[in-house]
Amino acid sequence: MRYDDRHTLPDKQLPYGVVVDLTNLSKNKVRKMANSELRCKSEFHGAVIQGDLEEQDPSILFPNIPNDASLLSLDIGGTLVKVVYLSRHNTTCMKEWTKELSDGVSSNCPILGGLLHFVKFETKNLDECIEFLQSEQVFLGASSDLCQSVGSRKSIRIKATGGGAYKFANVFSERLGVTFDKMDEIASVVVGANFLLQEIDHEAFTHMNGEKIFININHNDLFPYLLVNIGSGVSMIKVTGNGKFERVTGTHFGGGTIFGLARLLTECQSYDEFLELSQHGDNRALDLTVGDIYGELGYPKHNLSASAIASSFGKVNGKRKLTEYKIEDIAATLLRDFTYHIAQISYLVATLSGLKRIYFGGSYIRGHASTMDNISYGLNYWSKGQIEAVFLRHEGFLGGLGALLSNENIDVDDLIPCKFIKQLPSGISTVRGESQGVPHGNLSEKAGLHEEVERLRAEVERLQKDNTMLNDKLEKLKNNDD
Amino acid sequence: MRYDDRHTLPDKQLPYGVVVDLTNLSKNKVRKMANSELRCKSEFHGAVIQGDLEEQDPSILFPNIPNDASLLSLDIGGTLVKVVYLSRHNTTCMKEWTKELSDGVSSNCPILGGLLHFVKFETKNLDECIEFLQSEQVFLGASSDLCQSVGSRKSIRIKATGGGAYKFANVFSERLGVTFDKMDEIASVVVGANFLLQEIDHEAFTHMNGEKIFININHNDLFPYLLVNIGSGVSMIKVTGNGKFERVTGTHFGGGTIFGLARLLTECQSYDEFLELSQHGDNRALDLTVGDIYGELGYPKHNLSASAIASSFGKVNGKRKLTEYKIEDIAATLLRDFTYHIAQISYLVATLSGLKRIYFGGSYIRGHASTMDNISYGLNYWSKGQIEAVFLRHEGFLGGLGALLSNENIDVDDLIPCKFIKQLPSGISTVRGESQGVPHGNLSEKAGLHEEVERLRAEVERLQKDNTMLNDKLEKLKNNDD
Repeated sequence: MRYDDRHTLPDKQLPYGVVVDLTNLSKNKVRKMANSELRCKSEFHGAVIQGDLEEQDPSILFPNIPNDASLLSLDIGGTLVKVVYLSRHNTTCMKEWTKELSDGVSSNCPILGGLLHFVKFETKNLDECIEFLQSEQVFLGASSDLCQSVGSRKSIRIKATGGGAYKFANVFSERLGVTFDKMDEIASVVVGANFLLQEIDHEAFTHMNGEKIFININHNDLFPYLLVNIGSGVSMIKVTGNGKFERVTGTHFGGGTIFGLARLLTECQSYDEFLELSQHGDNRALDLTVGDIYGELGYPKHNLSASAIASSFGKVNGKRKLTEYKIEDIAATLLRDFTYHIAQISYLVATLSGLKRIYFGGSYIRGHASTMDNISYGLNYWSKGQIEAVFLRHEGFLGGLGALLSNENIDVDDLIPCKFIKQLPSGISTVRGESQGVPHGNLSEKAGLHEEVERLRAEVERLQKDNTMLNDKLEKLKNNDD
Repeated sequence: MRYDDRHTLPDKQLPYGVVVDLTNLSKNKVRKMANSELRCKSEFHGAVIQGDLEEQDPSILFPNIPNDASLLSLDIGGTLVKVVYLSRHNTTCMKEWTKELSDGVSSNCPILGGLLHFVKFETKNLDECIEFLQSEQVFLGASSDLCQSVGSRKSIRIKATGGGAYKFANVFSERLGVTFDKMDEIASVVVGANFLLQEIDHEAFTHMNGEKIFININHNDLFPYLLVNIGSGVSMIKVTGNGKFERVTGTHFGGGTIFGLARLLTECQSYDEFLELSQHGDNRALDLTVGDIYGELGYPKHNLSASAIASSFGKVNGKRKLTEYKIEDIAATLLRDFTYHIAQISYLVATLSGLKRIYFGGSYIRGHASTMDNISYGLNYWSKGQIEAVFLRHEGFLGGLGALLSNENIDVDDLIPCKFIKQLPSGISTVRGESQGVPHGNLSEKAGLHEEVERLRAEVERLQKDNTMLNDKLEKLKNNDD
């Protein structure tokens, strides 16, 4: 177990509306998420996830948001449009909120916050997204300008990222009269991930053999890490600090590949339908395993078990047509083999980049148990247990959230101080554990060099001391002579 | 250009039957290819490729082979059975051979050699392979025992490797009355590759933008290298010497994946048909490019051109059914995207293993121009021009050849000395160039550590000298005092 002090939350213990004591905010939490492109003036402290811990893309409560905030952002990718928008506390919200704060929980300031919502649409159905955005409710939260004058829509600027921010800017301008403030996609994803990992509890978790375990991240030891963002394609980003990152590489075999092939091979209509199909199939109907080639003993000499996949789709030999295969088996094969691939390449890139931690984000994870289990299994297999896959609940909204957090209308000075009393269900630790990595075997040469450097430095120091001592002695002897 | 002293052989210069002067064999050519499992007692010196330089899997002429050799080997993989067998020089062969040796070419000893042939069958059609092996001609070359007594087949042992050597041993025993000497697959592949790279001229070549360029390999600088064997799956083997290797990793996305998906999606009947289809299609009908997401300018900030593939099959959006896509486009997409994948993962593994050279083998290359061009392009792209893909003409027979070369019936002492006069067409250089690699940028940290170690060692040495000098001075001063 690489992440200490973790806690498991079985269903019966699921809390609703966890609130964190903001009085304990340490100074190191006050940090900037700025880089050359993005500037996050607001720190959005005290943000907490709403809903139960199993909820996918849960809303986030921001206790204090300045009045002039224009909080709506779009991340328009190749497959999906991710919308992040703020809804101000209306009466109903406030009632719920007040209810949550009962029993010893109180605030010592008026709550001028809101709920941040996360919604997605298929890029090919852009109309649905535009119709959604046209609803007053969304724009109400999105821009206070709009409340004052519907006729002033032309002046509304929306933070947008992803390729579609460039490609569809005209469509949004014509249909909604809004202008895009285009934010760099990779930079936005990094800002979003860093924010979630640094500020939001119950965001990061591992998922192995069906078990979801939330992890506590040591904020002093978050960096560096590899961020693997699984969208239509996959981007792999080395993150070394707030605003410090490099897109190391990517793979063109991403979610869009799985979905594209699934559409052709199974005629599924949605990715969720595909995922459902995959749960009822067996990849061994199409995958050629080591056992298929070597027999039931596998190929132990090179550590290849009989069940290991030797060749994805390698059992398809032309004797059966596509229609003679079960679509469930095809779906199971696609999901397993491409998630394994992503795990493998993530491991290789992380090791090559000297990184011990990998966080997975992106819309194609979908909080789907098998998807995450496969990635975890693959990463565990290839790293020989040295690296554990960690997922984020707002996996698909890293870019959208990052774009939103760089909203320049918000200044950190506008934030209203606010205090909540901690409300935690029993059994949940608030201790922030250390996220410790074990150097991987393949890095042993480098580790050896590091050791040699340390040894030599100590030797240099020792010799320098000796020299000083000898020089002193010489000096004394000379003085004695004089 | 990483391989110097290369020479291009355009079609008009193709020679037939290149023969190499064996009198110039340097001592370092006499080497062993032994490891814990395989022992190659015969060095098979003077072996030369027959046929023109464009021929795929050309026969290899072995000028001297002992009479008791039993030269037949099988490599039974998940998709293909590769047969390597020797045909003794019969009268016809001898006539051709004598003809080739005319015009100043002569031999000063009787040729007791043979031609090594390379044939493959689909594993699913094992009967075809068995029928082929039943032909007297194959067994004639394969075993002198058989010539003496057909009834003694039970005693015939055949070197066999690949998973099928285990899985189908009984079938071959029952049908042909032969017993398999099972050879380790990975070890055999390495023996085969090392033999070809060290002993056979005009074996290794690069293939970029349709241009095939034979390379000369500096035998003193062959190791280490990464051997990427593209079979049904892909094995990646770090080779550090004769008999010294480690299967680093592999990918389950191999030739079997391309063919399997091609069969399902295009209903092609053979891999060659698939390759032909792929030449008339356009992957952009199904692949989502960076340009599709970002527009014609691409995403220059992260060095992603508009034509780069963002998501393989990512353009398949459900509006068109499988039958509405051109099978040529599907084939082109499969070939391009999976060969790029193999190139990428090869680059990552090579860099992680500190290797600067990658040799590609395996049956799924097929000497196919686009396949090799794609791998070369991909490797060049990901390595930023630092690593060049090198291919082998006997790509699919590395395992079979390696198994055969470990034939324990042959002893190196049995080899008959033989001399041929060099016969080379004009324009072909015989200079063996150096294969130089440039360290990759990602290794700079390690390089930096090495430098630091060197610097510190020098500092330690300097300080030790100082100490010695100071101690001497002290000693002298003390002596003076005494």
